[in-house]
Amino acid sequence: MSIHADPTLLHPATSRKGTISLVGAGPGAADLLTFRAVDRMRRADVIFYDRLVEPEVLAMAGPRPKRVFVGKEVGAHSWPQDRINRAITAAALSGHQVVRLKSGDPSVFGRACEEIAAARAFGIEVEVIPGITAASAAAASLCQPLTERGLTDRLVLATATCRPGDLTSGLADLARPGTTLAIYMGMQRLSDVAAELSAAGLAPDTEVVITANASRASEVTLVSTLARFAAEAPAKGIRNPAIIFVRVAKTGAPPGLQRQVACAI
Amino acid sequence: MSIHADPTLLHPATSRKGTISLVGAGPGAADLLTFRAVDRMRRADVIFYDRLVEPEVLAMAGPRPKRVFVGKEVGAHSWPQDRINRAITAAALSGHQVVRLKSGDPSVFGRACEEIAAARAFGIEVEVIPGITAASAAAASLCQPLTERGLTDRLVLATATCRPGDLTSGLADLARPGTTLAIYMGMQRLSDVAAELSAAGLAPDTEVVITANASRASEVTLVSTLARFAAEAPAKGIRNPAIIFVRVAKTGAPPGLQRQVACAI
Repeated sequence: MSIHADPTLLHPATSRKGTISLVGAGPGAADLLTFRAVDRMRRADVIFYDRLVEPEVLAMAGPRPKRVFVGKEVGAHSWPQDRINRAITAAALSGHQVVRLKSGDPSVFGRACEEIAAARAFGIEVEVIPGITAASAAAASLCQPLTERGLTDRLVLATATCRPGDLTSGLADLARPGTTLAIYMGMQRLSDVAAELSAAGLAPDTEVVITANASRASEVTLVSTLARFAAEAPAKGIRNPAIIFVRVAKTGAPPGLQRQVACAI
Repeated sequence: MSIHADPTLLHPATSRKGTISLVGAGPGAADLLTFRAVDRMRRADVIFYDRLVEPEVLAMAGPRPKRVFVGKEVGAHSWPQDRINRAITAAALSGHQVVRLKSGDPSVFGRACEEIAAARAFGIEVEVIPGITAASAAAASLCQPLTERGLTDRLVLATATCRPGDLTSGLADLARPGTTLAIYMGMQRLSDVAAELSAAGLAPDTEVVITANASRASEVTLVSTLARFAAEAPAKGIRNPAIIFVRVAKTGAPPGLQRQVACAI
């Protein structure tokens, strides 16, 4: 449905300009939404939501808001970014309280800059409501913190999917001692990711953990190695949204802090 | 108060072992808690909380749980980690549902590994509930996403406060084109941070943004430069908890994506 085709969105109740809230929907589980996110969803006139937003998350908005799906469906294309920009600004200019519901955290690989800029170009008030990003949700599910004092004192969130023309994602630069690397959107580039990590000097038996659908009923984790994960992940049906974790401990760090997958609860 | 001195915690209602939930309290604003975090807080028998947990966050637990402060007060020392480990495991072994409430996200600079290991050593069920980390909250407040397609395709969360004996925090390695750097716990090491970033080749006029107390009523942001921030931040009274942001755009990135501080709402 195009926002432009919906007459109820073009005849506002008031002549005042509306607002746009970019709201983090979190990783998928409805109870990992924040109270502020749900407040904005319940007060919205219209919610534009992504393909990765789960039905139970959207249900938290209650009956009031109109829903507009802007994501990808089987056999159909997702809305291009400029069409989303036009739709959310048109709705706000018509006086509506607009929620742009984005999976995870809008500030992390959420293309929020483009929507903020579009809102500002029309003088529309805009805010960002943070959400739990997938790496954080996966780490919680696994009981494997993203930093560990003395072993990994830095966390890198990277994407394996860069703009057309970028030959590499630069992962090799990042895999330095003391780093936890969380790679988003890597499932279509597994061989490239493996090659870049190998080029960084990581040993073939370096542990690689992949969690797909963190916090959802369909959550699944693969514990593998650098040598094997690119073959094992597709064989086990692991698809995006997934996070690829690689931990490169500091040299000289004490051994014995073994990884254990899955919390006991 | 020591947990060992509290007789109500040593006489459990049942003979079953309790559980430990490491719960992310988020950045400070109560409405940035997740529903799951508040659920665990309300069902807890006892909550062990940090100095950075705001009273309004703790109030979300309702009247039921006992509160135990394990943080630093003026004129007093914080509990050492091993004392916290002993207290939370003793409470759980007494049959209590224990919440260990940690500011931000337990998986990010939260020393969660040590508490998970302590719980497991006693066979106590443990889970982690993710929270909004300070960098995410600050980015939302500023309407400055942490990644920006084509400019900054990676986000590095680093701490300037490493273990004793670590001479540098390794920031110079991280400040590469295409990176947003979010430095936690840097306010006591401003000169070192500035020196390391300069050593990475960043120009003196590189923008440095510092946000303290993200999401709290006391939130404050300083927009400065690499040459000036180490002097300006103390002069403006900016203290931890604060995040130092440095963005190093990709070389060849299109100009014109100017930073604007503060959302319009």
